[in-house]
Amino acid sequence: MPSTSLTFTSPEAHRSWLTSQATLPAGFRVGTTRFDFVPREAPKPAKMTLTLIALDKPSPDFAAVFTKNAFPGAPVIVGRSRLAEPAIGAILVNNKISNVCAPGGVDTANRICAEAARLLGMPPAQVLPSSTGVIGWGLPEESIITHLPQAVASLTKESMMPAAEGIVTTDLYPKLRSVQLGGGRIVGIAKGAGMIEPNMATMLVYILTDLVVPREQLRAILSRVIETSFNSISIDSDTSTSDTVVAVSSGLVPCPDLVAFENALRQICTDLAEDVVRNGEGVRHVMRIQVRNAPSFPLARALAKAIANAPLFKCAVAGNDPNVGRLVQAIGKHVGAHNLQVDLSRLRASIGGIEIFSAGAFRLNPEKELALVAHLKGAELYVSKPDADGIFSAPIHHPPHERCVEIEVDLGTGSEQATVFGADLTHEYVSENADYRS
Amino acid sequence: MPSTSLTFTSPEAHRSWLTSQATLPAGFRVGTTRFDFVPREAPKPAKMTLTLIALDKPSPDFAAVFTKNAFPGAPVIVGRSRLAEPAIGAILVNNKISNVCAPGGVDTANRICAEAARLLGMPPAQVLPSSTGVIGWGLPEESIITHLPQAVASLTKESMMPAAEGIVTTDLYPKLRSVQLGGGRIVGIAKGAGMIEPNMATMLVYILTDLVVPREQLRAILSRVIETSFNSISIDSDTSTSDTVVAVSSGLVPCPDLVAFENALRQICTDLAEDVVRNGEGVRHVMRIQVRNAPSFPLARALAKAIANAPLFKCAVAGNDPNVGRLVQAIGKHVGAHNLQVDLSRLRASIGGIEIFSAGAFRLNPEKELALVAHLKGAELYVSKPDADGIFSAPIHHPPHERCVEIEVDLGTGSEQATVFGADLTHEYVSENADYRS
Repeated sequence: MPSTSLTFTSPEAHRSWLTSQATLPAGFRVGTTRFDFVPREAPKPAKMTLTLIALDKPSPDFAAVFTKNAFPGAPVIVGRSRLAEPAIGAILVNNKISNVCAPGGVDTANRICAEAARLLGMPPAQVLPSSTGVIGWGLPEESIITHLPQAVASLTKESMMPAAEGIVTTDLYPKLRSVQLGGGRIVGIAKGAGMIEPNMATMLVYILTDLVVPREQLRAILSRVIETSFNSISIDSDTSTSDTVVAVSSGLVPCPDLVAFENALRQICTDLAEDVVRNGEGVRHVMRIQVRNAPSFPLARALAKAIANAPLFKCAVAGNDPNVGRLVQAIGKHVGAHNLQVDLSRLRASIGGIEIFSAGAFRLNPEKELALVAHLKGAELYVSKPDADGIFSAPIHHPPHERCVEIEVDLGTGSEQATVFGADLTHEYVSENADYRS
Repeated sequence: MPSTSLTFTSPEAHRSWLTSQATLPAGFRVGTTRFDFVPREAPKPAKMTLTLIALDKPSPDFAAVFTKNAFPGAPVIVGRSRLAEPAIGAILVNNKISNVCAPGGVDTANRICAEAARLLGMPPAQVLPSSTGVIGWGLPEESIITHLPQAVASLTKESMMPAAEGIVTTDLYPKLRSVQLGGGRIVGIAKGAGMIEPNMATMLVYILTDLVVPREQLRAILSRVIETSFNSISIDSDTSTSDTVVAVSSGLVPCPDLVAFENALRQICTDLAEDVVRNGEGVRHVMRIQVRNAPSFPLARALAKAIANAPLFKCAVAGNDPNVGRLVQAIGKHVGAHNLQVDLSRLRASIGGIEIFSAGAFRLNPEKELALVAHLKGAELYVSKPDADGIFSAPIHHPPHERCVEIEVDLGTGSEQATVFGADLTHEYVSENADYRS
């Protein structure tokens, strides 16, 4: 469950709440710069933002997890090698181009890191690069190097907001969550209009804290937290070549309790993960899918993801159509396709608390149908309407509420459970993804 | 490759070609009847067609394969038990409701089979039932039994066309393929606007022949042929709870050569499979995805399906946008997610014969971009345009051509290959599936 159930009536109200949460932990500075350039592969001008997160003093206490895609981007390849370095001093992020399998991409990333390091007065290996955007294109190295001094000059210790706004691509709004703990704080930001190969090909998450959490503990805690947060969401089932989550501690404030830290980090990551889905491309309904009483967590999560990724069920949700047959189909498809030895005879399923399936058969009637439609409509984020050219786009730039389509599946065969956030499949998603590069 | 590359300028031209192919093999009769009824679960009138395929004399030589979904429909449960029976005498198909997990569904199917058998003068276990349509609703047993005599009365031995037209639901047109072999023939029909949980939840295929092919051989041949035809297509990755392929021989004409029979059957099944994709819900581009020089057939097919099912790549194809990064992402996602030990360093990929990736990097330039756009446009089946209400629907009722988006991936690490037919992801798909039950 989210820590809060927020409603916002305007982008301004949303931005004002974000700003109130965005105070940087001690020991960090943030700066950005924006410039025009022409990509090599498609000669049409484009805009890029560089976002720089710098530590006042390099820290050994950092953790990072990266995409499992077998064609990782150059920054992911470089980032993995940084995990062995004794300390991190800065994170440099660009949007617009993801630097994935571009000829010479790793060398380009290294040269850019070296220049940033020179300007900041640290060794090149202390700069962690991140890139997000079109897959296949190469970075405009010269333009980036020309504009790096501006990013360095803009560094301030006030707020994380410039970074939250600098790393976005097709995101409708920035995503930021924070927690105050003891005398310190944790602030996290996320970029991604889909965890999973969103339009511009990446989810990026940066979490900063001033609380002392030694490197090995931070890495162990981050891996555990990721499983139930960012690894438990799906917008479109496509795994980005650039997904990256980084956590850095400046180590300036004593941590009262590592368990409390892990719980706070889990809350931030779960909330940011839900934010990413809510702000996903074309998303009009967020689905919270809970699979309970399963024999194992991996099975529970796999079944929840099978529901989250079933195109016809996603379309039904988009249309406020309680086509529950498609939900049960999705479970049966996963169990059948993977030949899983799982007893489905005790399966019970409900949507919005309304039982739709038990003891091997559907439990439907016209009254339930009406109640299910009402539940779906209640979770809608906006009303879908094409413009004069037949193009659909989400008419919001803030999250109006945090309600979900609540789906519960009880297997009755164990005691493990998993929660996955998913999204519907809408005209807005197709409009955004059938033409976005043109 | 298809046996033919047909173009049709009108639904009439297409229907006339189908009719010319539809002569029934010796020993079969076909009849249909259509009626109105009110479903129990949603009190709004609906229409149902019953299609009856009857053998003049029950035959032991039949084969059937069914969905692997773990929630199979009642007709699939009954159908599986029929495989042990000494002979088949008739196939009874209804559309509109699929009889999946409906309370008492198996008993209902058995009582309907018993009544059909009584009218035809054969044992109940010689009737194979099939149902397609909404998942979760129950069959209108009384209405079906009332209208069965009309279906029996309409049986004729002229043409397969009434069956090809009777079994459809959201299909845009009937699908029928045939081959003349020796003195006999093979005729197959398919229903399904998606192999995989199409709108109305089923792919159904019936193949009739008068050539002598003994039961055991027929079953072995059908299993082999299925792998490279119906098991090698995907419209939306959703596995129906009702998928059924049945092959029946009346055994009236000597078969010159079982190898020739298998080749002919493979051609019919591959063509019907491609027909199903071409006529898939909202499909505007068919993709033929060939993965070559792979270490195994299952791996080659899995990679081809990963491409066929990658939502963002499917959207790009819909928009005639050669966003090749999304193609490579889909391969990397599958290999990474399944932790496959496969060497991708020699991978080469092309679209429409134009190389886009080799030796670990993209090979792109503005000229190739234009050529790729032209290839995508050349494979388009129709131009997408919403109506005044913003609803998109395919403006065709025939297949205008048989061109595909030609995607080739060469792994360079083996000698096996697989071909998969896939489809794009369009506004027409969302329009059809976000509201179809309402």
